[in-house]
Amino acid sequence: MHILILGAAAGGGFPQWNANNAQCQRARAADPMVPPQTQSSVAVSLDGQQWCLFNASPDLRQQINDNPQLHPRADGPVRQSPIRSVVLTNADVDHVAGLLNLRESQPFSLFATARVQATLRANSIFNVLNPDFVTRKETQLDREFSPLPGLTVTAFAVPGKVALYLEDPAAEGFGTMAGDTVGLEVCETASGRRFYYIPGCARVDDALRARLAGAALLLFDGTLFTDEEMIVAGEGIKTGTRMGHIAMSGPEGSLAALADIAVEQKLYIHINNTNPVLMRDSDARRQIVDAGWGIAMDGMEISL
Amino acid sequence: MHILILGAAAGGGFPQWNANNAQCQRARAADPMVPPQTQSSVAVSLDGQQWCLFNASPDLRQQINDNPQLHPRADGPVRQSPIRSVVLTNADVDHVAGLLNLRESQPFSLFATARVQATLRANSIFNVLNPDFVTRKETQLDREFSPLPGLTVTAFAVPGKVALYLEDPAAEGFGTMAGDTVGLEVCETASGRRFYYIPGCARVDDALRARLAGAALLLFDGTLFTDEEMIVAGEGIKTGTRMGHIAMSGPEGSLAALADIAVEQKLYIHINNTNPVLMRDSDARRQIVDAGWGIAMDGMEISL
Repeated sequence: MHILILGAAAGGGFPQWNANNAQCQRARAADPMVPPQTQSSVAVSLDGQQWCLFNASPDLRQQINDNPQLHPRADGPVRQSPIRSVVLTNADVDHVAGLLNLRESQPFSLFATARVQATLRANSIFNVLNPDFVTRKETQLDREFSPLPGLTVTAFAVPGKVALYLEDPAAEGFGTMAGDTVGLEVCETASGRRFYYIPGCARVDDALRARLAGAALLLFDGTLFTDEEMIVAGEGIKTGTRMGHIAMSGPEGSLAALADIAVEQKLYIHINNTNPVLMRDSDARRQIVDAGWGIAMDGMEISL
Repeated sequence: MHILILGAAAGGGFPQWNANNAQCQRARAADPMVPPQTQSSVAVSLDGQQWCLFNASPDLRQQINDNPQLHPRADGPVRQSPIRSVVLTNADVDHVAGLLNLRESQPFSLFATARVQATLRANSIFNVLNPDFVTRKETQLDREFSPLPGLTVTAFAVPGKVALYLEDPAAEGFGTMAGDTVGLEVCETASGRRFYYIPGCARVDDALRARLAGAALLLFDGTLFTDEEMIVAGEGIKTGTRMGHIAMSGPEGSLAALADIAVEQKLYIHINNTNPVLMRDSDARRQIVDAGWGIAMDGMEISL
């Protein structure tokens, strides 16, 4: 399995358009220790020819341009793409807006839960995906599906939150229901070798820990280093908990909760512009690395 | 007035993700004669500090990153942007999708006609624009409004077509109504010096010619060089006429129709990936230049 990190940053990307913190300034100044990152998406392939996207970020056009693996083949027909399918983990803007780049009557399959598909149907702008070419497939939680030949994917519910623009302020949990945020188990069918892609997760529980054991790779929610980071930075009024994202650090954080799971390689992904791990020379980065984690970066390719 | 070309290409950009024609291949290969272009948008400022965007393309995050004029000021507060307002010319994906990049509780004003504003309201995904910060203002055709202090803008109807995803196949003109596509007259209030931004236009008539006379600059629909270009290229089944875009060449084309208008500077913008003028060494490009036109390019800055 080939896994290509298209975007390692959380919603807004890094630097974020209106964020003026020190690390965004360093990224804008092309500081080599603080490389810019686009928004959350990975591509997966078995043969290097056919690719499946996990989430479609607003930066997808730039991501396709920057990664030759996703270009049309030079000897191919006049309309062509190696992208065969897209799998969504939720309806967040940073995970669905990129679908608007996949217009132009190109065949592919679009996999998402019923709640996420309903959101896309309710937004007419997604009708740019011509139904004569784009097949929308409803996934069931905990039921295998195959977005590429030889690849088996299972979506499972993780603690999370409904997309911001769908929040119901009057409802418990802002109207969040099972299937609003999922993790993905991705398995090479022949070998059984598997990895997990979980860009949004509010809490690590025993069920999740048990599921992850034995995986070759974990790509996990690295939105925030500390739960109150955005408030401290003066960039927001919400904790990570309120946004549906577990922090890395602290007694309840993912570093502690996932310290002893048997996973060959652990990478944080979906990293917010306020998270100091985006700076290679930060203490936070050192803590992560010392704990055996890596940080996903745009253009990174992992073969399992 | 400072006019910054953020994106010179039409919907899909150049190269387009699934287009494999010779000029897209040259752009992907970094041929210096065929520079890539992002999707249709311009920024306007009087003082270089406050900017108004005309259209918000899907590439807006990349465009902001690539143009330091639109970065937060290094000495400014932690959340900040020089973007004060956005004016839309229609509801096409390549003109509205970039609004999804302007989330994060940043104040700005969003100007569009009633029909375009209704489309945004009907698509809940645009609720990421927090109404506590983003003011949506309905413009009237042929009535002045001011998206920046000292700048007067007038939207006027031009022959065009409703956005693709809103087409009604059963209705005459696919359900197109006045206000679905507008041109913008942009005037420095103090001096009266003015330019026109018309990225989509199906036909040039006498009324339009009369209006343009005396302008300092015209940015005009350069989608296609020939009306049947996309069909000939094997990349589509629609003529320019069907898509609501006048071609450059031919007896009915914009080169002929706008040959003798008294405008100081004429630039084509909103250029499709099939249009040979994107190649600096093409015959088509030479014809355009010989006729006194220029081609807008990403990053170009014009001071009037």
